[in-house]
Amino acid sequence: MQLPRGAAGADVLARLDRFVIETPSWGYADTGTRFGKFLQDAAATSIDEKLADAAEVHRLTGCCPSVAVHVLWDFPGGGSEAEIRRIAARAASLGVRVGSINPNVFEDQAYKWGSLTNRDPEVRRRALDHIFDSIRIGELCGSNLLTLWFADGTNYPGQADLRQRKRWMSEGLREVHARLPADGTMLIEYKPFEPAFYHSDIADWGMAHALAKEAGPRAKVLVDLGHHLPGCNIEHIVAFLIDEGALGGFHFNDRKYADDDLTTGSIDPYQLFRIFNEIAGAEHERGGPGAGTSADLPVAYMIDQSHNLKPKIEAMIQTVMTVQEIFLKALLVDRDALRRAQDREDLVAAEGVVKDAFWTDVREGIAEHRRSRDLPPDPLAAFRESGYAARAAAQRGPRKKPEGGRYA
Amino acid sequence: MQLPRGAAGADVLARLDRFVIETPSWGYADTGTRFGKFLQDAAATSIDEKLADAAEVHRLTGCCPSVAVHVLWDFPGGGSEAEIRRIAARAASLGVRVGSINPNVFEDQAYKWGSLTNRDPEVRRRALDHIFDSIRIGELCGSNLLTLWFADGTNYPGQADLRQRKRWMSEGLREVHARLPADGTMLIEYKPFEPAFYHSDIADWGMAHALAKEAGPRAKVLVDLGHHLPGCNIEHIVAFLIDEGALGGFHFNDRKYADDDLTTGSIDPYQLFRIFNEIAGAEHERGGPGAGTSADLPVAYMIDQSHNLKPKIEAMIQTVMTVQEIFLKALLVDRDALRRAQDREDLVAAEGVVKDAFWTDVREGIAEHRRSRDLPPDPLAAFRESGYAARAAAQRGPRKKPEGGRYA
Amino acid sequence: MQLPRGAAGADVLARLDRFVIETPSWGYADTGTRFGKFLQDAAATSIDEKLADAAEVHRLTGCCPSVAVHVLWDFPGGGSEAEIRRIAARAASLGVRVGSINPNVFEDQAYKWGSLTNRDPEVRRRALDHIFDSIRIGELCGSNLLTLWFADGTNYPGQADLRQRKRWMSEGLREVHARLPADGTMLIEYKPFEPAFYHSDIADWGMAHALAKEAGPRAKVLVDLGHHLPGCNIEHIVAFLIDEGALGGFHFNDRKYADDDLTTGSIDPYQLFRIFNEIAGAEHERGGPGAGTSADLPVAYMIDQSHNLKPKIEAMIQTVMTVQEIFLKALLVDRDALRRAQDREDLVAAEGVVKDAFWTDVREGIAEHRRSRDLPPDPLAAFRESGYAARAAAQRGPRKKPEGGRYA
Amino acid sequence: MQLPRGAAGADVLARLDRFVIETPSWGYADTGTRFGKFLQDAAATSIDEKLADAAEVHRLTGCCPSVAVHVLWDFPGGGSEAEIRRIAARAASLGVRVGSINPNVFEDQAYKWGSLTNRDPEVRRRALDHIFDSIRIGELCGSNLLTLWFADGTNYPGQADLRQRKRWMSEGLREVHARLPADGTMLIEYKPFEPAFYHSDIADWGMAHALAKEAGPRAKVLVDLGHHLPGCNIEHIVAFLIDEGALGGFHFNDRKYADDDLTTGSIDPYQLFRIFNEIAGAEHERGGPGAGTSADLPVAYMIDQSHNLKPKIEAMIQTVMTVQEIFLKALLVDRDALRRAQDREDLVAAEGVVKDAFWTDVREGIAEHRRSRDLPPDPLAAFRESGYAARAAAQRGPRKKPEGGRYA
Repeated sequence: MQLPRGAAGADVLARLDRFVIETPSWGYADTGTRFGKFLQDAAATSIDEKLADAAEVHRLTGCCPSVAVHVLWDFPGGGSEAEIRRIAARAASLGVRVGSINPNVFEDQAYKWGSLTNRDPEVRRRALDHIFDSIRIGELCGSNLLTLWFADGTNYPGQADLRQRKRWMSEGLREVHARLPADGTMLIEYKPFEPAFYHSDIADWGMAHALAKEAGPRAKVLVDLGHHLPGCNIEHIVAFLIDEGALGGFHFNDRKYADDDLTTGSIDPYQLFRIFNEIAGAEHERGGPGAGTSADLPVAYMIDQSHNLKPKIEAMIQTVMTVQEIFLKALLVDRDALRRAQDREDLVAAEGVVKDAFWTDVREGIAEHRRSRDLPPDPLAAFRESGYAARAAAQRGPRKKPEGGRYA
Repeated sequence: MQLPRGAAGADVLARLDRFVIETPSWGYADTGTRFGKFLQDAAATSIDEKLADAAEVHRLTGCCPSVAVHVLWDFPGGGSEAEIRRIAARAASLGVRVGSINPNVFEDQAYKWGSLTNRDPEVRRRALDHIFDSIRIGELCGSNLLTLWFADGTNYPGQADLRQRKRWMSEGLREVHARLPADGTMLIEYKPFEPAFYHSDIADWGMAHALAKEAGPRAKVLVDLGHHLPGCNIEHIVAFLIDEGALGGFHFNDRKYADDDLTTGSIDPYQLFRIFNEIAGAEHERGGPGAGTSADLPVAYMIDQSHNLKPKIEAMIQTVMTVQEIFLKALLVDRDALRRAQDREDLVAAEGVVKDAFWTDVREGIAEHRRSRDLPPDPLAAFRESGYAARAAAQRGPRKKPEGGRYA
Repeated sequence: MQLPRGAAGADVLARLDRFVIETPSWGYADTGTRFGKFLQDAAATSIDEKLADAAEVHRLTGCCPSVAVHVLWDFPGGGSEAEIRRIAARAASLGVRVGSINPNVFEDQAYKWGSLTNRDPEVRRRALDHIFDSIRIGELCGSNLLTLWFADGTNYPGQADLRQRKRWMSEGLREVHARLPADGTMLIEYKPFEPAFYHSDIADWGMAHALAKEAGPRAKVLVDLGHHLPGCNIEHIVAFLIDEGALGGFHFNDRKYADDDLTTGSIDPYQLFRIFNEIAGAEHERGGPGAGTSADLPVAYMIDQSHNLKPKIEAMIQTVMTVQEIFLKALLVDRDALRRAQDREDLVAAEGVVKDAFWTDVREGIAEHRRSRDLPPDPLAAFRESGYAARAAAQRGPRKKPEGGRYA
Repeated sequence: MQLPRGAAGADVLARLDRFVIETPSWGYADTGTRFGKFLQDAAATSIDEKLADAAEVHRLTGCCPSVAVHVLWDFPGGGSEAEIRRIAARAASLGVRVGSINPNVFEDQAYKWGSLTNRDPEVRRRALDHIFDSIRIGELCGSNLLTLWFADGTNYPGQADLRQRKRWMSEGLREVHARLPADGTMLIEYKPFEPAFYHSDIADWGMAHALAKEAGPRAKVLVDLGHHLPGCNIEHIVAFLIDEGALGGFHFNDRKYADDDLTTGSIDPYQLFRIFNEIAGAEHERGGPGAGTSADLPVAYMIDQSHNLKPKIEAMIQTVMTVQEIFLKALLVDRDALRRAQDREDLVAAEGVVKDAFWTDVREGIAEHRRSRDLPPDPLAAFRESGYAARAAAQRGPRKKPEGGRYA
């Protein structure tokens, strides 16, 4: 199988072009594990550097126009209107824009016992205020997407009243929803564990879904690929959420064990393909490739990775390329042949249709398409040739000093 | 800590007395794994023998007045009114009654591709008819509890349209709900895998919950302890469902790996305690031990085990005793002390309160309570002394002949 | 990347031609789960039919010359010399031969409490005798490969003395080794659970390895892909065993949850590729593709699947094609480029080299190679066109009658 | 069941008294997750404070005479002879001593690509030198126990040659063994993941065991309870290692998901009991309680926990008390009754014997025994009354300043 030609091929490539992927500011900075952080000379040290790096990724790939920000880390000035406008302008000048706004209600010492589920009403209020502030930042930046992840949870049986915390969480999320601008969307992320080791207040998609429904119609579920228990069938959850009208977005990454935050598709590329296959199948049902944007599911595609060892920008470009390739493969699934095979319970043929698309080598096709859009056919090679990393390392490296792990 | 005395102690024991546990007819018959079935001479071979065995368990424990039935296996005559009335009368004459009705829409060759989610409308109709029939059986038997487990799912990516199957499932469950008698309840069970190996149509509590809400107000979620992915925090799900008013019942068993169907509490007794702790905590909030039945959560407690190696009745009695003991431990949690420790974020003390109850040795206390109710203090010892098993083996054993595994 | 041309390409294809895959007799028969068995009209019902089906797979793929047999199921006559010679001759007449010999020491009622680890010395002796008999069968059939899987284990803590059972297992395996013919090899399989639900006597590769070393130099470890705990890095185990000189063979299949016995590569094809990548890398180190057979690792490649729903022969052909394709991809990894990237700690490039091979579409290349060997380019399509399945169904179907699950 | 009286009881209590538990210096300091570190005013900030805290635990429990040290964190002066002697003297003056020596070859930037498995021979040498230095520190401190945990591994397929790294690891470990003093022991720890997310060089007990055997007779395996894949039967591994003569020690902790480092017994106390049951059973076989020290397995019992939220010393005392209680329960298993039940394949009775010991409430018995040894009957209560924590907080708190997570 090759990339389809003619109108069908044009449709597929048009859909690929509309498939934009948000990169996260924190993916350009030094990160580590609880055992320590290995520094990279070229890693970004400020929001300006992160934006520059993200812009470089967008320049080379053409599909990453927005950058997710983490309020606490990226607005060190406290989020004054001036600071926000400066950062938004800076992004614009680099050819990108601020994307999803990520409040941080887990790092401050105040949140030791939780944020929205904290027993102390003042801490709950403080967390809410920070989230309201994040909404304000979004409005000033021109972003209408609020991404909510809570580290809230407990470490030991008995530590807290699980049902009471559920009610506090629900209360808080309803308040957040009430503050959303008219065109705003809030995504609720779930995670089974870490940093909470016994129970996380929003532990799975079912909890996120129930809470989102209670919060209001513009609250949707955010699926982070790494946030599932072993064996979980993620594409089934995705399909279920699509049918419920509750799928809001993705955090892309991959993992072998827990929330490893590895680059997307690096461990289980077929799983990613199957997830995209659910998206592509649902969009086909909504109108098919020919239907244009009207068929696109309103879903935010975001990368959330922590590149402990890989060079940051390279890892990001590699990820974007992988995600594009696998999304394209999913678009190639022959929906009619699949339906026919399913209709006659022909498992072997149905699986074959799906696998045919997966095994199709789309790399050359995408490269050619990039050329036609005046993009480098191999963005990773282009980046390596650009000298960007060396320049960044020369500027940023000298400012860094090693630090230890969580145990020293 | 000892069992509390005075009014508090009376409350606790009264709650224990109201804690009835349903045993399953299939737990008295020979069962096996896909690798084969090891026969036991004393295992039951008919519904009459199963009822007799269940009655023996109830006679010795005093807390198992009802028996879950599997329609296909226990009404071999096809479920004529005469057969149903005969079986109900037989149960009554033995001092027990028919409990939850379990349709079987997975064993017939017709269900190879699913029951309510089968592509073929005739098969879906056939499955529905069988379920309607199960409701009728319940009405004739005086049981208002319908327990729904579906083996429906697929083995391979591409085999079926996951969203389409979700809609068929939802459609079917709504029809079932519409047929429930006024006082009827339907419980929807979930299971991540087996016998479907790629996707199960109702894979987790979130799916069961969403489907139950769509089906109607008398549809609730059934939590089978063995039906979770590794690491899942089951008590959190239970707490969440209680708060949603959606917890319908339990299937008790235990497991180390997958759905091992081991005797309850045999692998992780502390997990079972934590689940009961959520029940006890919620009931305390609804009125406390003093409140009597009005505080009891409307939840069905049922055993669902497959005793491949243990003698059937012994395993059942052992299970009932374990479940009683651990439920009693959960009733002993000092709710006020727990709340106080939680209120000051005193993790060590809060955990200590919970663990204090867990480590309390309640065996002698229960034994004494049994004596006061004219029950044998050690039902297992009493059973062993009764000679029942030997008599059953003599009668039933000669009728059995070995059979091979799923592979021969 | 395309298939390499010239000498390098010839080497790769020569290695592919030497990559023979054994299919299992039980993969052609009806199998099921503990919940029931869905019958297929065309599934084989006797060793003769199984051999015929296996021969058909070999005729179409050219790489499956041997058939694994299960002694209990395939020598229903009890394994008389006449029966064995007849079956060997039958295989030869069909163009295949009997491959690995699989004793069955788990299905008989005698093995309820274990085989080689049974407390009863007579049962241990019986199991040993059966295994000795299996060795004899192999000698008569011309097979020198003994494959040992034990269902031995316990269901409950306390049921048995784990160390005592380890010693019995070790004792038995040493006796088996002593009986091996001079050119014989025994493979020891491991499995964490099922049918034993608390402990399996040979639970992981470490136990199989330690026991194999104690048994003797011709005892090796058999890696069944489905027999690992969630998250296990199987290719690491394979690499470790290669380095220890202890890797004896594979049982191919795939799974999403437990030992699902799905068709190989159907769930995680990249994992299979990574495993083959370890094989290919080690063989490269032993001499490279140019070295011919002298570099090949002495490893048995066997399929062990249970096709509950897929048509048997189709599933087998699909599996063989998948395994060939993915093995070929692993042969395409550019070892020098990989080494260079590793040497400069260039993770992104190193991963890229590996992924480049994985994403290469080899289907057309293999098809062409098949044509050059007078094989059908698409064995699955050829099988579907052959009418074989319909003929088999017509002959075999009428003899079948449904049976229930493990619970009736 | 009560604690046995007379000679049997004396034997049990004598064994309990010989059951010493090592606490880790790092368990007294502030620790966190990759998402941040919540500071505790009273947490220790130096080796002197850690020793003082450990001594307080020993003063109250009477069973924690030694303190594990982490070379990098606890010998900030670089490990000069003077520093080491000072620290050893300080410990002695507090009534404790330095226990196992833990090299740190993972935190320095040099170890980004591994320590003993680093491609760069200079880094491997540096790691070895640090380990040799750790041996020297042990000799100067009077400790003969070297505890080796390696963070070595890779994050991505292709990143490194797994077999090459195995050989480097083996080489290094052999060199370490050669440097051990005559009475020295080295323990090799395994861990499936974290901080390496694709492969860890010593991923499971089988690898640790094989490497230990190659290193030499004084290399043993260290079992950290949190370092296993989901579903793993740890007590089976322990039993296997005991039988191989390869069990060297434990790192106690508990977990619900991954390596959560929760307090021991807080999530799965029955699992801990089953592990101790294997120890107690093996010691019984070696001579029984009456045999005194000659029957004790030469195993090091060490705590390795990270108390992110619980107050450090309280968490440690709670852990020690829990471990003592559960170890005592295991000593109470009626070995003869268990053997008899096993001998007649009486699963229910055998499990009952084990569970009887588990459910026995030993808290009062231990409290009484503590009193007889002039220890506080409830060490945790005694600590809370002592005012130690408040004094420590007053002294240490003012010196601390918050720090962010791994992402800022």
